[in-house]
Amino acid sequence: MLNPKLSDKKTKGILYLIPTAIGSMQAIDYLPQTVIEIIHSLDEFIVENSKSARQFLKHCHIPTPQQQLTIHELNKHEGNVFEASFFSNLLSGKNVGLLSEAGCPAVADPGALIVAEAHKLQIKVVPLTGPSSILLALMASGLNGQQFAFNGYLPKEKTERFAAIKKAEKDSAQRRQTQIFIETPYRNNALFDDLLNNLQPSTRLCIASALQCENEMIKTQRISDWKKQRQELNKHPVVWLFLA
Amino acid sequence: MLNPKLSDKKTKGILYLIPTAIGSMQAIDYLPQTVIEIIHSLDEFIVENSKSARQFLKHCHIPTPQQQLTIHELNKHEGNVFEASFFSNLLSGKNVGLLSEAGCPAVADPGALIVAEAHKLQIKVVPLTGPSSILLALMASGLNGQQFAFNGYLPKEKTERFAAIKKAEKDSAQRRQTQIFIETPYRNNALFDDLLNNLQPSTRLCIASALQCENEMIKTQRISDWKKQRQELNKHPVVWLFLA
Repeated sequence: MLNPKLSDKKTKGILYLIPTAIGSMQAIDYLPQTVIEIIHSLDEFIVENSKSARQFLKHCHIPTPQQQLTIHELNKHEGNVFEASFFSNLLSGKNVGLLSEAGCPAVADPGALIVAEAHKLQIKVVPLTGPSSILLALMASGLNGQQFAFNGYLPKEKTERFAAIKKAEKDSAQRRQTQIFIETPYRNNALFDDLLNNLQPSTRLCIASALQCENEMIKTQRISDWKKQRQELNKHPVVWLFLA
Repeated sequence: MLNPKLSDKKTKGILYLIPTAIGSMQAIDYLPQTVIEIIHSLDEFIVENSKSARQFLKHCHIPTPQQQLTIHELNKHEGNVFEASFFSNLLSGKNVGLLSEAGCPAVADPGALIVAEAHKLQIKVVPLTGPSSILLALMASGLNGQQFAFNGYLPKEKTERFAAIKKAEKDSAQRRQTQIFIETPYRNNALFDDLLNNLQPSTRLCIASALQCENEMIKTQRISDWKKQRQELNKHPVVWLFLA
């Protein structure tokens, strides 16, 4: 006799986690051929923003005409990130792609809630390889890649912000842990000042700016050296990393 | 007048950080075309193990004959991870590739020391996109991708090991931080038991096993559910993730 649970599982679709491009490069140059082939096989996607998702799919030369694509948008559902209907075709056997706005879905974006729901529904999840600014910055920093913490954004309020920087530096020293942050570009110069003013002179700071753009700049040096070398950073996305 | 520092910088080579395959797939299927093209343009590499590096380069169809490749091996230098000579061609203008044994160089491998030295020597470092088991596991876990910590290996000694698991769970709860670990495959079953015995029933555990292999298995559920569903894990590389 067929195990009903097993056969049920077999008929469900796969949720593919599809990375998109970062920086100014065309997605198709920065994704493995196998990922492009999977994108081409799909016609239903869960996305953050349908306009940029459609543009990305066009750059990938998706063969299905745009008007035949089913695009579910996150965060458009009265307080809910997603709707149960996003999963109906997946549950009845269709493969669906989850796209991020930039880089890898479910890392520093709301996609993780979709993946968590897929696990609850026992839908198979397959992550695909592509660019991640956090990972590229970590690789290129020369800081500790054996232990690291990604902390997202620092608090905006000054007192909390300074305390968070000092706490992260203490953790970094105690745990030999590279600390990783991001910031909205127009606050980069202010964050740079805050780091210069709150970190120890010997702490190594990596600024990974405009990754995968023509003007990519990745530089690691001690706070004491950065103090002699201010940078204009407000125009570019930056990943910030330090190791005490 | 030429800025001597600038012109000096221009004549140095680039250190490319080249990801290799993970799992059982061929590298060439899992790397973007742009990365393959950069690999093809190089004939000098810094690697962990020259035999597997040569095999990887062969799989990438590198056009330079194997006997004309210059391969520097890490950890072969009487207490030093590398020798100053690894950088001589880079300093005089040649591009060189840094390869990991599996996945992304400088993440959970000794390559970070090479990258740190490159920054000291003001050599430009360019990270390239490829598979990382840590990142793929995080994406597919459905756990928090806004805050996470990679901790490498847990201590081997039982008391320390249990304390480390409990401390990581406490951090996870306080910081809403996904905790990520790796273990040598033959200790996976033991680690599974240790996690089941030391974590709270409500903590969500993701087991990401045999990534990029035919038998890839990624599953997230609460410790209370895992207790009803033991797995045989000693044969496969696993990334372990949990969120309290």
